Amino acid sequence: MTLSKKPYKGTRDFFPEEKRIRDYMFSKMKETAQLFAYESYDGPLLEEVELYKAKSGEELINDQIYSFNDRGERFVAIRPEMTPTVARMVAQVHREVSKPIRWFSIPNLYRYERPQKGRLREHWQFNVDVFGAPKILGELEIIQLGIKLMQSFGANSEHFEILINDRAIVDNVFKDLLNCSEDECYKLYKLVDRSKKLDKEKFEKQIDETSLTEEAKEIFKEYLKLNSIDLLNTFIQKHSIPKDSIELIGLYERLQELNLSEYVVFDPTIVRGLDYYTGIVFEIFDKNPENRRAICGGGSYANILKIFNEPSLPGVGFGLGDVTLKDFLITHNLLPDFTTPTVDLILTTQDEDGIKPLLSLAHSLRSEKISVFTQLEPLKIKKVFSLAEKKGAKFAAILGSQEIENGLIQIKNLSTKDQKEFKIDNIEDIKGYLA
Amino acid sequence: MTLSKKPYKGTRDFFPEEKRIRDYMFSKMKETAQLFAYESYDGPLLEEVELYKAKSGEELINDQIYSFNDRGERFVAIRPEMTPTVARMVAQVHREVSKPIRWFSIPNLYRYERPQKGRLREHWQFNVDVFGAPKILGELEIIQLGIKLMQSFGANSEHFEILINDRAIVDNVFKDLLNCSEDECYKLYKLVDRSKKLDKEKFEKQIDETSLTEEAKEIFKEYLKLNSIDLLNTFIQKHSIPKDSIELIGLYERLQELNLSEYVVFDPTIVRGLDYYTGIVFEIFDKNPENRRAICGGGSYANILKIFNEPSLPGVGFGLGDVTLKDFLITHNLLPDFTTPTVDLILTTQDEDGIKPLLSLAHSLRSEKISVFTQLEPLKIKKVFSLAEKKGAKFAAILGSQEIENGLIQIKNLSTKDQKEFKIDNIEDIKGYLA
Repeated sequence: MTLSKKPYKGTRDFFPEEKRIRDYMFSKMKETAQLFAYESYDGPLLEEVELYKAKSGEELINDQIYSFNDRGERFVAIRPEMTPTVARMVAQVHREVSKPIRWFSIPNLYRYERPQKGRLREHWQFNVDVFGAPKILGELEIIQLGIKLMQSFGANSEHFEILINDRAIVDNVFKDLLNCSEDECYKLYKLVDRSKKLDKEKFEKQIDETSLTEEAKEIFKEYLKLNSIDLLNTFIQKHSIPKDSIELIGLYERLQELNLSEYVVFDPTIVRGLDYYTGIVFEIFDKNPENRRAICGGGSYANILKIFNEPSLPGVGFGLGDVTLKDFLITHNLLPDFTTPTVDLILTTQDEDGIKPLLSLAHSLRSEKISVFTQLEPLKIKKVFSLAEKKGAKFAAILGSQEIENGLIQIKNLSTKDQKEFKIDNIEDIKGYLA
Repeated sequence: MTLSKKPYKGTRDFFPEEKRIRDYMFSKMKETAQLFAYESYDGPLLEEVELYKAKSGEELINDQIYSFNDRGERFVAIRPEMTPTVARMVAQVHREVSKPIRWFSIPNLYRYERPQKGRLREHWQFNVDVFGAPKILGELEIIQLGIKLMQSFGANSEHFEILINDRAIVDNVFKDLLNCSEDECYKLYKLVDRSKKLDKEKFEKQIDETSLTEEAKEIFKEYLKLNSIDLLNTFIQKHSIPKDSIELIGLYERLQELNLSEYVVFDPTIVRGLDYYTGIVFEIFDKNPENRRAICGGGSYANILKIFNEPSLPGVGFGLGDVTLKDFLITHNLLPDFTTPTVDLILTTQDEDGIKPLLSLAHSLRSEKISVFTQLEPLKIKKVFSLAEKKGAKFAAILGSQEIENGLIQIKNLSTKDQKEFKIDNIEDIKGYLA
């Protein structure tokens, strides 16, 4: 039997070119987090399954999680998301550290998915969370950070929008206006959550099939048509919803003050994880009609520490996956070319005798922080430049037999085509030329 | 029942300070790899168990691996090491790409260990491999890279040494000089591999208990006493071992040419993974008597691609774990202080009214790539500077009620103690001051 060379289903081999793309995306994430003074953390890949159950309920656990018993009969899972881990860590330290706690991570996560566009079994996710920030200001900061990240890739309000809602509105509409029982609320949540995947007719039909009164159905449909903060404001007034309970209104004003409101669109169908989010919920959404999908989802959650019997500490955060982000960047042609690596110098020789001085020169230059690709076998001069290009070298050096004899080396600047000869042991001058 | 706040056994929570230490170690790894033009790659966390069996035999699989059946009845494992993955990836592309292939990665790995000093269930490992390099030169480069990495942390030959051997020597001694059968060879390998963990007397006793002839025992003990390349050379000559078959001799000359031989010590007891390594084997070893342990292990392996039915391609590489590296750095006091994060500016206000201009200024400065920690609640002036210190801020700014009224802000350079007042909307000048 021959072994397969393919990666496990739903996972990826990151060959160097693909890895450079990932590194590029991660570096923007880290830079953006640093601009907002978020500190990097990480946790273990395995956690006890109980932790995920406590946060997400049974459903996610049963359907999507990679879980197994370890040899000590601990029932563990490969992390499907980072929030339970960060909550567990915050629960350990929140009493001693000053607030707000601002943390980020880029963990690898596993979900048992049927692989499809934008969804794989293994992905990486940029997680940012702020704990203990004053009301609205945490939400504002997290959304700002999301926008700044997207901008760091060259994206703007033509490329993406932030669909936003407030669970206080949804709760108010469902419980107070529609007069739903908890059970009915739950069904409506699920229906709303699915609405983007249904065509309009089917969706209307499903609304008609609910147990709502005719009047409630009308209000529900009226709610679902709201597509701006202005219309939301009118709706709130009309139905006497207590405005103070709706953080989204205040948040929107803050976003306007920072000239960021152009990015934000009220979307009544955004509800997200039911048992988890408690206030603002949002998604960064691709505006390209060919790729209408969420790149990122987040919101505020007040009660996560309760699963550890700790006093509640308000948290706001989002998760943004590498797979959907890359799709977004490709869709909008925002991904730079990463075909070739980069290196300062490629060092080659035409002669077996050149290997010794070549190794010695490479050794000296590396001590000067110059990166050197050494070709370890003699190479014909006409092949040097195509190799140099493939390796992304800024300079190419050739040790011909005459140069070896005279202790000299030719170095060519590959962008200016300028070429110069150096004594091979004159590291100072070579370094100066390469700088 | 209350959920545990502790991480899963044998794993670590990387709180920001701990994560900064890890980031520091990883950044040195990446920089060093880049100096040698090694390209970054990564593979999936899960691989089919067959892959590890093919490389390592049943033993590792049964005892140490985290394996389970996925929902599709694929028998998979969390990667315990990176070599099988990199081999699988190289097997996919080696026909098309120019040699040598120089790759590195820093994956998270799992082994089912009993947690103890230097050994955890989850760790990260710096993996470097070169494929298709000419004989000796691949080995030389990998060892150079190991030394350069250690030097990048400020370590030198007082702190660490490279214990080295050549499987060709071991094979020659066992098979030809001692006249061992394959079975006996295997037992001797195991005995030699364990020798550092046994006291001298016990070890001698175990040698005496082997089935070797008295003459063979003497030669074996003579071999085990060799502790320098010079003595090895004498031994080789005395026993007429064909010198050309021993790459270590040529490698040592190359190391001398590069003034690196001071790092390298011949060690007859280094044999490493039996079914895997085929030539040079080595370990980077801590010289501190309190922490005598391997920080890294590696060597050359000729046949890894055979498990994929591919023509063989010589590989050389090493793996260096984060746990033992950190122990090494601490032991030798080589770890910088990572207690505090770093940020350019901390922005505070003494007044609720200051929040709005504070948010606006932070927003503008972040667009100028200045990292800003905003304190989102009014803070008394005497608390600003201790907070600034805790957050590693270079500058601190305070928006008092008078400043708010006049549209001004005070910014203090925390290292020079110099303080200056700016118009709050004069981003250019503020940026200049902070630069």
